[in-house]
Amino acid sequence: MSDVLKKLAAVLEARKGADPQSSYVAGLYAKGLDAILKKVGEEATETVLAAKSGERAKIIHETADLWFHTLIMLAQTGLKPDDILTELDRRFGVSGLDEKASRQGHK
Amino acid sequence: MSDVLKKLAAVLEARKGADPQSSYVAGLYAKGLDAILKKVGEEATETVLAAKSGERAKIIHETADLWFHTLIMLAQTGLKPDDILTELDRRFGVSGLDEKASRQGHK
Amino acid sequence: MSDVLKKLAAVLEARKGADPQSSYVAGLYAKGLDAILKKVGEEATETVLAAKSGERAKIIHETADLWFHTLIMLAQTGLKPDDILTELDRRFGVSGLDEKASRQGHK
Amino acid sequence: MSDVLKKLAAVLEARKGADPQSSYVAGLYAKGLDAILKKVGEEATETVLAAKSGERAKIIHETADLWFHTLIMLAQTGLKPDDILTELDRRFGVSGLDEKASRQGHK
Repeated sequence: MSDVLKKLAAVLEARKGADPQSSYVAGLYAKGLDAILKKVGEEATETVLAAKSGERAKIIHETADLWFHTLIMLAQTGLKPDDILTELDRRFGVSGLDEKASRQGHK
Repeated sequence: MSDVLKKLAAVLEARKGADPQSSYVAGLYAKGLDAILKKVGEEATETVLAAKSGERAKIIHETADLWFHTLIMLAQTGLKPDDILTELDRRFGVSGLDEKASRQGHK
Repeated sequence: MSDVLKKLAAVLEARKGADPQSSYVAGLYAKGLDAILKKVGEEATETVLAAKSGERAKIIHETADLWFHTLIMLAQTGLKPDDILTELDRRFGVSGLDEKASRQGHK
Repeated sequence: MSDVLKKLAAVLEARKGADPQSSYVAGLYAKGLDAILKKVGEEATETVLAAKSGERAKIIHETADLWFHTLIMLAQTGLKPDDILTELDRRFGVSGLDEKASRQGHK
């Protein structure tokens, strides 16, 4: 499963030049960043509601939607999932999750 | 980079029994699902604002925060990142992103 | 302008028993609380993006949408705008906004 | 209760020039629009979770927080609650909520 994000990012990259009518993703690129970000916000709320429902299938479905639209945002802003994974590895690898905890304390 | 989510999920799983004082994650588990979901919503808004800023480092930072708290939510609800990756692969593998497009049309 | 919320709440109350096909609001009630809350989350993100755009008409439009769907949520949960206004008056009347500040400090 | 929003807006306006240390609101102005918008997003998620809890006091508390931070956003962007109430009245007054329904259909 570990290469799914990378494969998906490659597909999203390839859709960038496509006819806006040709796919959901190409249409979203054409509408622009705000349209993508609306979807990120919308799917975050749907993920919250799915988690409250406790229904396994719903949580999986909505979290996949949230990650998917995050990947479209990354593609639109010239980033790759590896940029996020490297950041998570850096936080986790160096000093573990305690780094996160200490950072939060300063917020 | 591809195993970061799996490694992170293992660490999050291990923190489940820990003293709430011992780490940020253990504290969040102890506060319960609503506290975790507040963070998911909060980080989604911060991701939106980061994307609007156009600053690469901010987008990486906030998206990592969003994914991180999504992983905590998954751990709390008994799910794993592979459940989400399998769902994304299913959507992408079978009929490509067009499946997503057609599904959206029925929303 | 001060009675708009009250008048709007009365209309929203009256729509409760209506045919789901008869209006947008009646349809939303029929879909249930989660559908209303998805709209609250969605409009919040659109309000954030409108504020970032700096366009006066957009900010007014999206904030009106956000308040409107909040009013539907209040109607669905048996509350009235006056319940919120009373709470805001209580915070503001007793000790001013400093009450808010001190409360936040304990979060 | 009907003048609470107007009174609150006047107080928020008066806080604009104040020392950031003097109150929660003055501190938020000083941090800037993004900090205000983070709060709008955060309180929207908390309103969603409060509505799911079904607890009357929580819903009132969080909706008040959401409206309150929306008012701060309006003040920061040079708008007043009356701008929103006028918009709601326009939608509601002219052709009722059906206007909203038809508008949504074109989204």
